[in-house]
Amino acid sequence: MTQRATTVPGGLAEAHRKTIGILGGMGPAATVDLMRRVIALTPATDDADHIRMLVDCNPAVPSRIAALIDGTGPSPAPTLIAMARGLAKLGADMLAIPCNTAHHYLGDIRGAVSIPVLSMIDLSAETIALAHPGVAYAGLMASTAVRLTGVYENALTARGIKPLYPSPRAQQAVMDIIMAVKAGRTESLPGSALNDVLSDLQEAGAGCILVACTELSLLGVTGTDLPLHDASEILARSIVATALVHADRRAHPQQTLT
Amino acid sequence: MTQRATTVPGGLAEAHRKTIGILGGMGPAATVDLMRRVIALTPATDDADHIRMLVDCNPAVPSRIAALIDGTGPSPAPTLIAMARGLAKLGADMLAIPCNTAHHYLGDIRGAVSIPVLSMIDLSAETIALAHPGVAYAGLMASTAVRLTGVYENALTARGIKPLYPSPRAQQAVMDIIMAVKAGRTESLPGSALNDVLSDLQEAGAGCILVACTELSLLGVTGTDLPLHDASEILARSIVATALVHADRRAHPQQTLT
Repeated sequence: MTQRATTVPGGLAEAHRKTIGILGGMGPAATVDLMRRVIALTPATDDADHIRMLVDCNPAVPSRIAALIDGTGPSPAPTLIAMARGLAKLGADMLAIPCNTAHHYLGDIRGAVSIPVLSMIDLSAETIALAHPGVAYAGLMASTAVRLTGVYENALTARGIKPLYPSPRAQQAVMDIIMAVKAGRTESLPGSALNDVLSDLQEAGAGCILVACTELSLLGVTGTDLPLHDASEILARSIVATALVHADRRAHPQQTLT
Repeated sequence: MTQRATTVPGGLAEAHRKTIGILGGMGPAATVDLMRRVIALTPATDDADHIRMLVDCNPAVPSRIAALIDGTGPSPAPTLIAMARGLAKLGADMLAIPCNTAHHYLGDIRGAVSIPVLSMIDLSAETIALAHPGVAYAGLMASTAVRLTGVYENALTARGIKPLYPSPRAQQAVMDIIMAVKAGRTESLPGSALNDVLSDLQEAGAGCILVACTELSLLGVTGTDLPLHDASEILARSIVATALVHADRRAHPQQTLT
């Protein structure tokens, strides 16, 4: 009479959960930071309660900066497509990309696999629109490559919000910090390194701040009294919510096993 | 006349580096901790300088504790073998397992793939033997499952060293801490939680300490004046040294491209 799904120790139904594939390495520390956030956000009392993550932390993804800003490097698209296909083949049910700039190639990646690919850009824009109805400007802490691709323009303007970028001088400070993080020099960065950039965006009229670079997420940006959102944290929340949907259903088997 | 390998930005030769596959999820935070150590130990000035990591962070690996201590659970071997084969197929050149207890199944895993599988146990025993010639006893901070499997006995005694475990009471404290880490309750642990265990091992005659549980590695064990080694850090060092061997050769192409 009572039909039971196979459960794993910890009580959640493994067979009903989703596996997340992560296209990583852009940079490697940002990939590890996303994984850490997913683990922290997952309700768990033992190993078995966690979400399966299949991760390709690949340093061979061509530089987004070289391809998009300098125009000197090859497109990262073919490598990203190969990674996505590999992770899907290994068993990923959905994919995530912990690099805002790489979302310029989201269409290419989505076209190459039959599993869903989460968009950190759309998820972030939606989070801001829901949290701050009527806000006119969102201040973006992002790499210059993100700005050049315009990945946030469509997502934000479709929701009536305009992206606001730092002044050229402040933007250079942002880039210096991103490159320092990629070089592993986070210890040498003062906690206040981004304060001028935050002031800059506030003075220009930003109603909230979005940390839209996974390297900056690593630093744990603070130093503003504006509401602050973090694209990596938003992506991690979405991964956990999506992966555990089926596990939640399992808690009420009568709803699914009729 | 000068034959050049394809290089990636940052100067290292991607084609000459090795990709590490990581059998993870035991637990997930310990897997992330190993990745973080590999990234920190890799000489890098940009993303491209890092080592490719293919990671299966899998919560569905049956509990080593249930299988080995309680005797109630299924063997983790089939799942570990499937993970190893998947990572090899995806392109891993070698494998590592950030879980000391899981090394009980190292023979099964090695028998299932044709790529090398690093042994955190042998690497740790060798590190201790080289660092402390003539030491009689190495104090092991490890799960009770590690002790029951005896994975360290052969590796240490072959090098003339005897493993020393905490008293039953102290060992229970170790297990409580391991389970707290797996449940994500690291914040509630006092930094001194393991001090009694360390004293216990020192009084029993340990000449050095080996942190032989990846959950304890996460905590960054201190609180002893004995020399202290960490199996996760030793594994990370070995991954970096092995993966970059070919990149180092690339720096002297005449040695390989004759």
